[in-house]
Amino acid sequence: MFSVTILGNNSALPAYNRHPTAQVVGLNEQLLLIDCGEGTQIQMSQYKIRRSKINHIFISHLHGDHYFGLIGLITSMGLLGRETPLTIHAPKELEAIIQLQLKVADTALPFMLTFNPLKEGIILNEKKFSVEAFPVQHRIECWGFIVREKKQPRKIDKDKIQQYAIPSVFYERLKNGDDYEDKNGNIILNEWVTIANTTPKSYAYSADTLYDEALVDKVKNVTVLYHETTYLKDLEERAKARFHSTTTQAASIAQKACVGKLLIGHFSSKYDSLNIFEEEAKTVFENTELALEGVCYKI
Amino acid sequence: MFSVTILGNNSALPAYNRHPTAQVVGLNEQLLLIDCGEGTQIQMSQYKIRRSKINHIFISHLHGDHYFGLIGLITSMGLLGRETPLTIHAPKELEAIIQLQLKVADTALPFMLTFNPLKEGIILNEKKFSVEAFPVQHRIECWGFIVREKKQPRKIDKDKIQQYAIPSVFYERLKNGDDYEDKNGNIILNEWVTIANTTPKSYAYSADTLYDEALVDKVKNVTVLYHETTYLKDLEERAKARFHSTTTQAASIAQKACVGKLLIGHFSSKYDSLNIFEEEAKTVFENTELALEGVCYKI
Repeated sequence: MFSVTILGNNSALPAYNRHPTAQVVGLNEQLLLIDCGEGTQIQMSQYKIRRSKINHIFISHLHGDHYFGLIGLITSMGLLGRETPLTIHAPKELEAIIQLQLKVADTALPFMLTFNPLKEGIILNEKKFSVEAFPVQHRIECWGFIVREKKQPRKIDKDKIQQYAIPSVFYERLKNGDDYEDKNGNIILNEWVTIANTTPKSYAYSADTLYDEALVDKVKNVTVLYHETTYLKDLEERAKARFHSTTTQAASIAQKACVGKLLIGHFSSKYDSLNIFEEEAKTVFENTELALEGVCYKI
Repeated sequence: MFSVTILGNNSALPAYNRHPTAQVVGLNEQLLLIDCGEGTQIQMSQYKIRRSKINHIFISHLHGDHYFGLIGLITSMGLLGRETPLTIHAPKELEAIIQLQLKVADTALPFMLTFNPLKEGIILNEKKFSVEAFPVQHRIECWGFIVREKKQPRKIDKDKIQQYAIPSVFYERLKNGDDYEDKNGNIILNEWVTIANTTPKSYAYSADTLYDEALVDKVKNVTVLYHETTYLKDLEERAKARFHSTTTQAASIAQKACVGKLLIGHFSSKYDSLNIFEEEAKTVFENTELALEGVCYKI
């Protein structure tokens, strides 16, 4: 199942038992960690996230509420005897910060730690999915991410294939959509003997950003968009001054980009109750949900 | 009241809802923070510790479970608009780590942040108390701390002082213990007209250390000693290999140093229940207590 579990949905100051940003995307038994605010490893224990399944971590930007938990997580992985390599996809300055902290502690990790400085485009290309980075507008260098399932091969219809006596050597080409021509020159159309696989889904994480319509093209038609809503709509000026967005701005991006669903989070610590965030966003984009900690959302 | 509140009592890996090391010493309305593991600012919110009363933070060493929460705490203090200066007493490499993280976030703190590299002896000398640092034996540079109340002036006994007609200009000297000689040459002994103030108390925090009898002299006669007990007594070899101590070793230091009370903590994450820690330590030093999170211990 393709899903995202929220570990932290608050902005900079922890408040009301809400934690700084961290999310875990689950995909084919792999887990991808997106951002890693302070306390993420403790949230992982609480919500039974298996650290050993994380091989890639993506850090959107170097404001502390998005990465102060990373050094603790890396150190703990080492103490737990991890041997599998780990790659951190992040702004380039992060490497020096992490290496300096490992050095002063005289820590030699038992696994290979690699840093991949972020740049626009595909930054991870696996067999069944890819991850793209795209720049967003924030006070410092900041990146959003899109996790996309790859198109899956068509499935062979076992009954039909016997009916047309197609040799098994041709099956791979059938899965890729090719038609078959038999020895008499008859064309067996692909769609007669195969079934379409599920449509590839996608998840976009827009990180911290001010309202920016350039985002619409970047996240066009994704299945689920996570967009920050640090403030309610009455604080649009403050949001702009601090390079953040409001409820109706996030919903407007979702609407213009024709996404399937909008998840909202990164709530300012000035708000205790979150219901009004959902209400305001829904006036613009109906299929909106609050990103709540501990909840696993299906993509 | 002179007290210490435990915010984290676990060793490196957070476990069983126990957190990495952090303690708050309360003294005359001031709070001193000793060590600051990941999540300390969240623990402070939970236990209603007022960050604004902390002007000095002491970091024993640069293993992450003792300082990974510091950058988050400092950043939050800035976001909350703190203006009072803050001093960090720590191994000298910490300054570069913190400054690098502030720089990449483009954060200008609204208060003055000063780093005081640790050296042996008195590192903070206030009107009513002092803090001393002493080196301990760990895998990397590591320091213990002793917070000592200063001797308080004697209190004047109002009834007696009228009886001897001592002029008020002499009161300050009486508080300091001087005798008074009247115009006829009669000596009024200080003890006839003043009352001793309470005996100065002291709290020693021994940080992470292997069993080291050199510690005995350093913490001699303190009111309360906090000594780490990462392991139970059966793991003495492992404790030694990792530069840590066991229950009976900690209790032995307490006994030899004739301290008033022993607090034990820094429990390994391999232990779920802690009762046996207390039992084992008490076989050597009866007045032992577990350092439990959220509990405020009177010194």
